[in-house]
Amino acid sequence: MPEGASDNPVLVEVTRGGIVESRHRGAFAVTHASGRLLLAMGDVETPIFPRSAVKAMQALPLVESGAADAFGLGNDELAVACASHSGEAIHVAAVRSLLAKAGLDESLLACGAHWPLSEEAARELFRGGSSPLPVHNNCSGKHAGILATSVHLGFEVRGYEQPEHALQIMIERVISEICGVALAQSPMGVDGCSIPTWAVPLRALAQGFARFGAGKGFTTERKVAAERLRRACHEAPALVAGAGRLDTIILRGVGPPVFVKGGAEGVHCAAFPELGLGLALKVDDGTKRGAEHVLCALIGAIIPAASSPLAERLSGRIRNWKGLQVGEIRASAKLIAAAAETLHPS
Amino acid sequence: MPEGASDNPVLVEVTRGGIVESRHRGAFAVTHASGRLLLAMGDVETPIFPRSAVKAMQALPLVESGAADAFGLGNDELAVACASHSGEAIHVAAVRSLLAKAGLDESLLACGAHWPLSEEAARELFRGGSSPLPVHNNCSGKHAGILATSVHLGFEVRGYEQPEHALQIMIERVISEICGVALAQSPMGVDGCSIPTWAVPLRALAQGFARFGAGKGFTTERKVAAERLRRACHEAPALVAGAGRLDTIILRGVGPPVFVKGGAEGVHCAAFPELGLGLALKVDDGTKRGAEHVLCALIGAIIPAASSPLAERLSGRIRNWKGLQVGEIRASAKLIAAAAETLHPS
Repeated sequence: MPEGASDNPVLVEVTRGGIVESRHRGAFAVTHASGRLLLAMGDVETPIFPRSAVKAMQALPLVESGAADAFGLGNDELAVACASHSGEAIHVAAVRSLLAKAGLDESLLACGAHWPLSEEAARELFRGGSSPLPVHNNCSGKHAGILATSVHLGFEVRGYEQPEHALQIMIERVISEICGVALAQSPMGVDGCSIPTWAVPLRALAQGFARFGAGKGFTTERKVAAERLRRACHEAPALVAGAGRLDTIILRGVGPPVFVKGGAEGVHCAAFPELGLGLALKVDDGTKRGAEHVLCALIGAIIPAASSPLAERLSGRIRNWKGLQVGEIRASAKLIAAAAETLHPS
Repeated sequence: MPEGASDNPVLVEVTRGGIVESRHRGAFAVTHASGRLLLAMGDVETPIFPRSAVKAMQALPLVESGAADAFGLGNDELAVACASHSGEAIHVAAVRSLLAKAGLDESLLACGAHWPLSEEAARELFRGGSSPLPVHNNCSGKHAGILATSVHLGFEVRGYEQPEHALQIMIERVISEICGVALAQSPMGVDGCSIPTWAVPLRALAQGFARFGAGKGFTTERKVAAERLRRACHEAPALVAGAGRLDTIILRGVGPPVFVKGGAEGVHCAAFPELGLGLALKVDDGTKRGAEHVLCALIGAIIPAASSPLAERLSGRIRNWKGLQVGEIRASAKLIAAAAETLHPS
């Protein structure tokens, strides 16, 4: 087993009392749709598991197959199919609506149950005396989309989460085409929600997101499908994550110039359709704190206008329980210098 | 500002699908009470903030001053004074009892309020229509202990959380003496609960814990006070953390051969009184996942009998929402080799 990624640079520092208390290392790539690397730090060649960051790519067959049209899916249902949602009432309603339109029952969901990511939603559920159901799983929208696509294409719905299922093979082929890598030859892991996740190098993942945004090299059908999914996420940003969560804040605040999606273990990806760029990052330690700060710093550097909706996050203020500022989260000097040199050469 | 700690080795790996998905770097020291280093990896000389890992040292004046005797404090109250508790009913009761015995009101607590760390306790509070109070703050026992000591010594209680308060100066001197470093010359940060935290090198912190366990170099009063606090934590392990939390599991399962306490941002410390050893560790990224696995691996290596109560943690199995094993958390080969070579030379 290769050590890999062991020399990735520090991308984010967390300070307290005037010293650096903690640090997050990682790697990222920003590429053109052509694959030309614009900016990279760390190891962008060793495959990493993209986890939920590729949910919009996993949802392409839902649109390309004609299932979304056949079932009359709207923005909420398409957005939740691309989501790692918080289990709020709006999310549960959208997943149930998607399933109902496809004539499916939520007992088919193979994602497993967990308490809603939203503390408030979890407490409401508890107050009502209920236990979490698979529909509350943050991945239930993706699962519902896969189920709907399977039934539309006449595939057996049971076992849809297995890597040998026809729809998982279709998804594997779609991501392989978009990222330009043969996923079938890559390491495969099982995701938190039981479906397969195939490892992809960050450089290829960034190119895949650039293409997903710009439609470059896509068939017309795929280009239209990607646009439709992105538009749904921008029209219904609350469905993609939830109240107070970064993907929702970015989709809503920055709008169509950027499409973003995070995944577990510190992965985050973005597409910049107007610029024809894609971004993929992973922090080595798998922390959301590290990944989200790298993401904000890079989006702020790539789209200066995004700095305003991201101001609160970019300030990085760490407050304690009494509201006193006790430290800050900030991009490392190396990251700032690399971004400035490449993206805003003087 | 020094970069520091930038070359710390990978101590923990997290796998999925046969590859390393994430990794945690860090540093640790295991020393004798004399200060002689038994085993170390990474940078153990640059000061780090020990955060809540030194709560038992911060509680020494409560016993040394005679306050604990004067107020007739029992094990629960002493243990909660050393705790980062989960805000369960037993914790809230012990903090309130400590304050009541000292004739103090909980409105004096300056730690700020947060929802109980225990999800269950948080949901119960929510179901009852209540909001969290300062007494639910995981540090409220420490604050109550500081308040009780202050009132016993005739200090002004208001402002007890400020670094210039007489009791904070006393605590700073106690930790300086135990760890053999002049904290007043060290970087000082403000902790999550608003009291000061002074930076200490891991090597000095490990020596301090060795002394705290063995009483070596202590006055009789301090030795007795340290023993009393450790005994309280072993008699009432549920009070020190809470249900399902590692410090409680170790204190209960391994018993007097080890005293442990974790702090925020990936710090964990331990004393091995019978062996005269101390341990201090910090993972660079500040994650509990990384710190707790390093701690378990080292305790298991230092006290082989501890491997049994720690078996579940040491197995490192990562299960997904359906209960499938999808990966593992494991000590890195470097950590295993270093521990084996020093602690169990063939």
